[in-house]
Amino acid sequence: MPHFNPLIARLSPPPVPSVLAWGKEYDGARGPRIDLSQAVPGYPAHPDMLAWLGEAAASPAYTGYGAIEGEDVLRAAYATHVSGVYGASVTAENIHITSGCNQAFISTAMAIAGAGDKVLMTNPFYFNQETTLSMLGIGVELVPCDAALGFLPDIDAIASALKPGVRALALVTPNNPTGSVYPPALLRRIFDLCRTNGTWLILDETYRDFLPEGSGAPHDLLTVEGWQDSLVCLYSFSKSFCIPGHRLGAITAGPALVEQVAKIMDNLQICAPRSAQAAIARALPALDDWRAGNRAEITRRAEALKQVMSGLKGWKLQAIGAYFAYIRHPYPDIRSEFVAEKLAKIAGIVCLPGDYFGQGQEGYLRFAFANADVPTILQLEERLSNFNLPGI
Amino acid sequence: MPHFNPLIARLSPPPVPSVLAWGKEYDGARGPRIDLSQAVPGYPAHPDMLAWLGEAAASPAYTGYGAIEGEDVLRAAYATHVSGVYGASVTAENIHITSGCNQAFISTAMAIAGAGDKVLMTNPFYFNQETTLSMLGIGVELVPCDAALGFLPDIDAIASALKPGVRALALVTPNNPTGSVYPPALLRRIFDLCRTNGTWLILDETYRDFLPEGSGAPHDLLTVEGWQDSLVCLYSFSKSFCIPGHRLGAITAGPALVEQVAKIMDNLQICAPRSAQAAIARALPALDDWRAGNRAEITRRAEALKQVMSGLKGWKLQAIGAYFAYIRHPYPDIRSEFVAEKLAKIAGIVCLPGDYFGQGQEGYLRFAFANADVPTILQLEERLSNFNLPGI
Repeated sequence: MPHFNPLIARLSPPPVPSVLAWGKEYDGARGPRIDLSQAVPGYPAHPDMLAWLGEAAASPAYTGYGAIEGEDVLRAAYATHVSGVYGASVTAENIHITSGCNQAFISTAMAIAGAGDKVLMTNPFYFNQETTLSMLGIGVELVPCDAALGFLPDIDAIASALKPGVRALALVTPNNPTGSVYPPALLRRIFDLCRTNGTWLILDETYRDFLPEGSGAPHDLLTVEGWQDSLVCLYSFSKSFCIPGHRLGAITAGPALVEQVAKIMDNLQICAPRSAQAAIARALPALDDWRAGNRAEITRRAEALKQVMSGLKGWKLQAIGAYFAYIRHPYPDIRSEFVAEKLAKIAGIVCLPGDYFGQGQEGYLRFAFANADVPTILQLEERLSNFNLPGI
Repeated sequence: MPHFNPLIARLSPPPVPSVLAWGKEYDGARGPRIDLSQAVPGYPAHPDMLAWLGEAAASPAYTGYGAIEGEDVLRAAYATHVSGVYGASVTAENIHITSGCNQAFISTAMAIAGAGDKVLMTNPFYFNQETTLSMLGIGVELVPCDAALGFLPDIDAIASALKPGVRALALVTPNNPTGSVYPPALLRRIFDLCRTNGTWLILDETYRDFLPEGSGAPHDLLTVEGWQDSLVCLYSFSKSFCIPGHRLGAITAGPALVEQVAKIMDNLQICAPRSAQAAIARALPALDDWRAGNRAEITRRAEALKQVMSGLKGWKLQAIGAYFAYIRHPYPDIRSEFVAEKLAKIAGIVCLPGDYFGQGQEGYLRFAFANADVPTILQLEERLSNFNLPGI
């Protein structure tokens, strides 16, 4: 019997493939399958995006090795974009391109903490962040997010968890799984607590582009003097440009952290794939209007889901925000993993169970509502109201 | 002052960018720069390869998330290829696609060992493998490779280093940096020692496709009953298809190890970039003749370098094999890092110093001779014979 690293052996298999497998068992009796599991916008990538991806991939210009930190054009374009979003002065030296946001997280985590160190996360959490820390032997301590408070992290709980030696606090806003959007003032208070304690704040903002229209800057942390010593912001190009298969994300940080991440990335994969970087550098300014249109569309989808949920007995929309809704199912004594499995197999509604996102989440389901268009979301009303858990 | 993980902070910056920077300071006085540093074949990718990369990248079929273990078509195509090369029965379930071979190594290493465990490597070693283990807190013990024995690992040294609890032995064949090709019988003896000790053998075969023409199977380990419990073979599509910028590699292992690696890859980056996987699945069988032609070309380049080195006083071709030559420079009291810097800046010959590859390697330089065509290699004779280290 082969011997594996026990930190890896004890991890459960990745959750998304097993959930997708439930969906494949659905027989279509209630209509087409509705996939609200992995966050993938239901509309396609822009035709220009595809054309630019194809053009760059066919070019001999991107076949060789590239800069570890990322293509100069994309680092510059993304720095300009971030500066605009936050009203900050971010330059290319602040940017490290990665192969998706999970890689942005693991390389940041490794730069900051090693086996035996401690990192704080929220409960519920984004499961890949928790398994990433666990597999590295980094200790995780959880800060509760109360449903009654819209799943915002409790500032007092953070203050008391921030003991000397805590290496980082990892937050996700807009949140995965709850959709909850952390207000700028709360983020500022949390950041100040982190700075005082010598703790890095790692902010995963993968879903930033799906904030409701008219939202201002998501926070002002990038304008705080000396932010580079305590803040790392993570981002994904996957959702916003509908190209997760091309695997690109970004880290915004001080040059000292970028330098540490480059050492890690050199070992992880030398550099992120190059041709897609060139394509995104073109798309970032050029597809701004298209992305704004998508944001408006996502807002309409959120409204449709609110309407659906308000008419359903037993089901409760506990939280909804950018991209995700967190929904309390009507079976208080049944684990959400079981409910999600039956929903997928019987009703063709594929979503992730709250169980996967932390302790005490058995009552919840995560709906990636932004995956589905308004007519599809409206179908949920009939499907959910007709759904009965077998044996109950 | 921000606090970083000391295992990362103590790592030197990635070596290749600083070597490339030396080359940029060369003024061209001796003719065009000759880049023998990072292993990148000097000939371009096949036009069909570029066309297929472009076609797949422009397709909406690969924009979504893919299977963690890799695209089915590539896993199957590579399994067929491996079965042919080794005369073995390898199936798609034995294959995990990664974003380059460094990622194949780190995910394999993590699956097998954690902080505090011990892994054996050779001295000299491929530096990214050493820094990968170090940054994970995995202890490294080195087995010497004697120049007088063609830099083959010493079987007795391996036997005595294989103590209980040693998690893995990592070998690179054809070797980076020396070019040395480990004979099948030696590999079999080493593998048997590993199995007896309950130690994984990790075999990095990135340069396999550059073995001299007419070489038989590189080894018979994949035909040994139960190999799945003790062997992992790593590979890169970068060199052979001249597309390192697209970042794709592969692991060949038992399904149990593939399952562990999938958990790690899910956290590292979910899946390798998809469109290039589809393109390589087409290229693997289709460009077989083209790759065979390149192998013959590399053999001619090796012959040209042997001819050049035989006529040079003070310089010694210590080893040459698939892709790399390991060369003793004429300055016994000077570290190769200094020699390589001056060679790059004054003579326009960019190569990697032996220093970077382990202990006691100050006398050597690594020439990635396969990067340069025959006429360019022949220019080395005049450049090296006219080279004088300043101040000597």
